[in-house]
Amino acid sequence: MRLNEKTIDRTVIYNGKIIDLELHDVELPDGSTSKRELVYHNGAVAVCAVTPEDEVLLVKQFRKPAEKPLLEIPAGKLEKGEEREEAAKRELQEETGYIASNLEFVTDMYGSPGFSSEKLSIYFTDQLSEGEMNLDDDEFVELHKVSIENVKSMLKNKELEDAKTIIALQHLLLNYNHSK
Amino acid sequence: MRLNEKTIDRTVIYNGKIIDLELHDVELPDGSTSKRELVYHNGAVAVCAVTPEDEVLLVKQFRKPAEKPLLEIPAGKLEKGEEREEAAKRELQEETGYIASNLEFVTDMYGSPGFSSEKLSIYFTDQLSEGEMNLDDDEFVELHKVSIENVKSMLKNKELEDAKTIIALQHLLLNYNHSK
Repeated sequence: MRLNEKTIDRTVIYNGKIIDLELHDVELPDGSTSKRELVYHNGAVAVCAVTPEDEVLLVKQFRKPAEKPLLEIPAGKLEKGEEREEAAKRELQEETGYIASNLEFVTDMYGSPGFSSEKLSIYFTDQLSEGEMNLDDDEFVELHKVSIENVKSMLKNKELEDAKTIIALQHLLLNYNHSK
Repeated sequence: MRLNEKTIDRTVIYNGKIIDLELHDVELPDGSTSKRELVYHNGAVAVCAVTPEDEVLLVKQFRKPAEKPLLEIPAGKLEKGEEREEAAKRELQEETGYIASNLEFVTDMYGSPGFSSEKLSIYFTDQLSEGEMNLDDDEFVELHKVSIENVKSMLKNKELEDAKTIIALQHLLLNYNHSK
């Protein structure tokens, strides 16, 4: 069986600022057809940044879809034509003020692959210098610096609910030698 | 500063089978207003299941938004009024044939909290018995049983791109004593 779904008809429902919505008729592997509701998104980036004091930079912001504030690693949307690493450095500085001289790729992730095309790339850095924050007009964030011990307890106590943040911090615990 | 965004006007763009799309005008913490494109989803569940042979159950399926097959832990949407643990057991059996007698809660996650309300709950089980698969008509999945050593190398080589799957398998490596 070849795993594939071919679009045979496509209706654009909405073209927005952040997302587009389309309804596709697809042909399934057995030749039958089904419908797929598809959210298209330009992609995003996020950075797990550790300061010289071994603290992780997290930002708290109100997330309307969840109707509550979430604590997350700095992240944002890719602008049209923007390179992912450049976007990651830009978002880190805009939201925290810190400038990363170098980024290591951690992983790509699809947060909701059943309906959303959003691919988010996570990077890691511990090479930071201090610059100035520069938030978007409609962005309100609180910067939190969290020790790696506190990261451990936040994960253990299931206090983090943002997927990219859980991935980045578990990756940190699995891979980062913070006693160096 | 109180992190909150109050809806002051709301337009329903689309009511679908899996998702609804709304456009909200919101009042920001400084009293100014902005627009939010919001995808509403009923929620989902997923199970990280380890067999008596210490293999993790993964399913490969074509994901239309990504235009490729992804390897994922068994998962699915919550049905209206369905309890999360029951949904997790149901999806595990439908997609793999395995019946879980008990589940441990791992974490909740928002995969795309900037625009999507989807909250997914991840569970863990190593208490499995074999039953029968029962896929939905439009579901085509391949079952893969992967050793924990192979899980390690798949994470290291960034072969996994589904957020819930990366979270569940990192959690397994951080917490599961598979030499018991």
